[in-house]
Amino acid sequence: MQLARARPAVGRSLVRSRPTGLPVHTRLQVLRRPASTDSTESVPIVPPKPPISYWHRFLQTVGGVTLVTLGTLGVFYYYAQKDKSPGEQLPHDPSKKTLVVLGSGWGATSLLNSMDTTDYNVIVISPKNYFLFTPLLPSVAVGTLSPRSILQPTRYVTRHKKRQVAVIEASATSVDPIAKTVKFEDTSEIQGLVSTTTVNYDYLVFAVGAEVQTFNIPGVKENACFMKELEDAEHMQRRFLDCLETAAFPGQTPDEISRLLHMVVVGGGPTGVEVSGELHDFLEEDLRSWYPELASNVRITLVEALPSVLPMFSKQLIDYTESTFKEAKIDILTKTMVKEIKEKSVVLQMPDKSVVEVPCGLVVWAAGNKLRKVTQDLMAKFPQAQTNRRGITVDDHLRMVGVPDKSIFAIGDCTATSYAPTAQVASQEGAYLARIIAQLAKRDELAARLKALQETPAVEETKQEIESVQKQITKAEKMRPFHYSHQGSLAYIGSDKAIADLPFFNGNLATGGVATYLFWRSAYLSTLFSPRNRVLVANDWIKVKLFGR
Amino acid sequence: MQLARARPAVGRSLVRSRPTGLPVHTRLQVLRRPASTDSTESVPIVPPKPPISYWHRFLQTVGGVTLVTLGTLGVFYYYAQKDKSPGEQLPHDPSKKTLVVLGSGWGATSLLNSMDTTDYNVIVISPKNYFLFTPLLPSVAVGTLSPRSILQPTRYVTRHKKRQVAVIEASATSVDPIAKTVKFEDTSEIQGLVSTTTVNYDYLVFAVGAEVQTFNIPGVKENACFMKELEDAEHMQRRFLDCLETAAFPGQTPDEISRLLHMVVVGGGPTGVEVSGELHDFLEEDLRSWYPELASNVRITLVEALPSVLPMFSKQLIDYTESTFKEAKIDILTKTMVKEIKEKSVVLQMPDKSVVEVPCGLVVWAAGNKLRKVTQDLMAKFPQAQTNRRGITVDDHLRMVGVPDKSIFAIGDCTATSYAPTAQVASQEGAYLARIIAQLAKRDELAARLKALQETPAVEETKQEIESVQKQITKAEKMRPFHYSHQGSLAYIGSDKAIADLPFFNGNLATGGVATYLFWRSAYLSTLFSPRNRVLVANDWIKVKLFGR
Repeated sequence: MQLARARPAVGRSLVRSRPTGLPVHTRLQVLRRPASTDSTESVPIVPPKPPISYWHRFLQTVGGVTLVTLGTLGVFYYYAQKDKSPGEQLPHDPSKKTLVVLGSGWGATSLLNSMDTTDYNVIVISPKNYFLFTPLLPSVAVGTLSPRSILQPTRYVTRHKKRQVAVIEASATSVDPIAKTVKFEDTSEIQGLVSTTTVNYDYLVFAVGAEVQTFNIPGVKENACFMKELEDAEHMQRRFLDCLETAAFPGQTPDEISRLLHMVVVGGGPTGVEVSGELHDFLEEDLRSWYPELASNVRITLVEALPSVLPMFSKQLIDYTESTFKEAKIDILTKTMVKEIKEKSVVLQMPDKSVVEVPCGLVVWAAGNKLRKVTQDLMAKFPQAQTNRRGITVDDHLRMVGVPDKSIFAIGDCTATSYAPTAQVASQEGAYLARIIAQLAKRDELAARLKALQETPAVEETKQEIESVQKQITKAEKMRPFHYSHQGSLAYIGSDKAIADLPFFNGNLATGGVATYLFWRSAYLSTLFSPRNRVLVANDWIKVKLFGR
Repeated sequence: MQLARARPAVGRSLVRSRPTGLPVHTRLQVLRRPASTDSTESVPIVPPKPPISYWHRFLQTVGGVTLVTLGTLGVFYYYAQKDKSPGEQLPHDPSKKTLVVLGSGWGATSLLNSMDTTDYNVIVISPKNYFLFTPLLPSVAVGTLSPRSILQPTRYVTRHKKRQVAVIEASATSVDPIAKTVKFEDTSEIQGLVSTTTVNYDYLVFAVGAEVQTFNIPGVKENACFMKELEDAEHMQRRFLDCLETAAFPGQTPDEISRLLHMVVVGGGPTGVEVSGELHDFLEEDLRSWYPELASNVRITLVEALPSVLPMFSKQLIDYTESTFKEAKIDILTKTMVKEIKEKSVVLQMPDKSVVEVPCGLVVWAAGNKLRKVTQDLMAKFPQAQTNRRGITVDDHLRMVGVPDKSIFAIGDCTATSYAPTAQVASQEGAYLARIIAQLAKRDELAARLKALQETPAVEETKQEIESVQKQITKAEKMRPFHYSHQGSLAYIGSDKAIADLPFFNGNLATGGVATYLFWRSAYLSTLFSPRNRVLVANDWIKVKLFGR
């Protein structure tokens, strides 16, 4: 399945990257020749055909290819139309249990994508009514992608489900695990008469994610740009362009120009590295054209507290990244701590413990996650079981430990598991939970049947049935534990290069360079949930290649 | 040649409209039969050709068309690349005069587009570093177009000029017409060490536009959305979606839902009408799919103080618009004044002078223009000549009346002329000014030569040359006055319909309906300045047709 999916993605990217069509036709001619021989063999009595000019043959081939392409586009258009206007859905059914999902990120969206909503009345509560494809946020920040391309309205997923799913744009403020209720509140600008309310749940999926960790370092909140929400990326883009314009202001001193054009990225994880790479691309590809007088003054510095960037990648790839950054004139400062962020500078503690103040125009903060208040409050209700300060402790089936009736599941960045807090883990947890929840629905149905049977007068037949149902329940209760299967790590490092650690054949395939970059693009495209977003992102990439940012 | 070209085109359009491919080839076979008979008649000596299958012929045609299409795309790609990376430019030349342009709207951009920058050192000062295609703002507000598609960086124009043009993102704060200086200030979020400075000018083009007129009606600034800048459209989009989500909040009362889903548009000019139309389209096309439970509660009301909407259009078209709006369930309230805008309602004075308070979720304000402070200050320096409170009075050559050395030109919405304050007028004024300014450069050059000649010892030859130069100067000083040529008015009124008043054959062609809508789209596309924006907007339109907003 994995392989089958990978192949068309590669093919697609090749065709797209060569718009002239010529290399394609050469390949296709070769492919088609045997086919035409076949057709003459089937009518051997007709006198031999006069040689048809190669030009005509060529035109025929091109024509065939075009027809196939147009046909594919037609089918695609049909599906796009179908996607746009979803049909009727089953209404909520009072006899079904209520499943409340808090969040609309990787975990929650993956769950919604995979689950069968006929088994439950599903309510999704999240302060944003869309799923955000976070790995591409840095691309939005520099304008490679348009914000709309990387977001997918949650209703887009839920409206295609068999049974209606209620999507509520609100922040969950507290969970009562005993009364089994969730309280939530409309926190947006416009408020109606009713703006706080409570729903009951039978099962709760807690997938609220995390917020930005500032480690209480002074000035981070006030002066740094984050890279977590869409607004963060737009904010960074505005500030970044503002730095350029302010540097271009007539009479600006050279020192001030180099301060304004010094961009500091804090955090050497994939986000920090990708922001640096994308910034570099923007500066290299667009700044030189539109602000030629500034181009030579731009500097990018990446600050990381650990001894190396990208700790989840192999040594080779770290080296490759470092040398690419060196070529691209991006400075990497490892073992360096941020002490304070001021309006026009960042205070750093260097590896030798000396403290320096570095002037800069923009600081991007991509340095870690912190639990949300609603998560901390929920954990505080189980002080014995929930002691891990990193997040919610869950059992093998992703149920929150300590909850008496095991009705709360927790996935994604709000949990503390042995896996890294990545989109990939959250997304696999969501898909796993969809199966578990289907199994629970089956069990609950059997339990209801058992109860009904036990209440009827006990004849021999009923007893047998009770036994059989009890066996089925025991079977339905056996749930396979969650197991994370690492599909590899990918990061874009700028200059049209990407790095990937892929677990093939039990070893790690470490690769880097332009080929990986193309793979990165197609991998991202194929993990984007809807065909709509796939096309929008590809479209943006083409637009940037054509017109710049 | 003509025929050969025409045929494949027909093939293409047929193929496109029937993506499955099969019915097309059958029909084409029938169409082509007579043609192939002709070709055998013209070569009677050669033994009869074995019949080449029609299918192959058809494929050849399609192939030819594809090659031509790909070739066109290739050429387009080449130009896009050329556009993306402009070449070297001449530096500023101290011997040339300095032309300062204030603004980056329709007037200023049209001037920059048309003018030859070799004659001057040009400095553009504007608080935004891009040109905004304002007629399409309502489309951005409802998400039909992406913000980037309708803006064009000013540097995109100036970097393709022969001589460098300085583009400064700053607000002009005051003009000194005696010392001939402009003072300006960086008003953006990020400020450098230097944030105010002054430049000298020899000629000044004053094209700062206007700001939103609120008529000092209470609550307009606080509670209404405007439709003038890009941020306004984004703000409206956010509020609009927020209204939907708040209405969808569980437990909201029916009254509150109809309040939240009541959208009031103030101003019956083209902007107000287009906002209403676009809102209706959004509600009709997208809301029904994604918020089916809300769709029936939405209401749009258009409020206009005058007796009819769209006063610049003919009676027929006004009637057509009104009946289209009636069908679309958009209420039009004419002769109705807005008295106050509250957070959750709008207070209206009806034609019978009664005052009613109408609950609503969103108010869009598109009701007129007001002079900017910098314009008022400049006018106050010529109290005798500048008495029109509507704007700067200019002479036939768009020179500000009262300025002693006639060195200030004023165009666009900051002026008071006999023409309506439209994009079309400003854009024609800019183009006219480009010619005037070129003529001035010629005159100034001749004057300099005259001066040099007069300073040399007076031999007979020099005298003759002086005379000839003087004649040329007199000729160069004769400038044709500005004349506005009305190219027609266009407005989109929703439901895929548009109206147009076009001055053909000295009469007015009044038209409305779907055909006009297509014309509207293509007219807008062809007036967008750069091919880049044309493609981006067309691309957005296709995206919306495919995927919704």
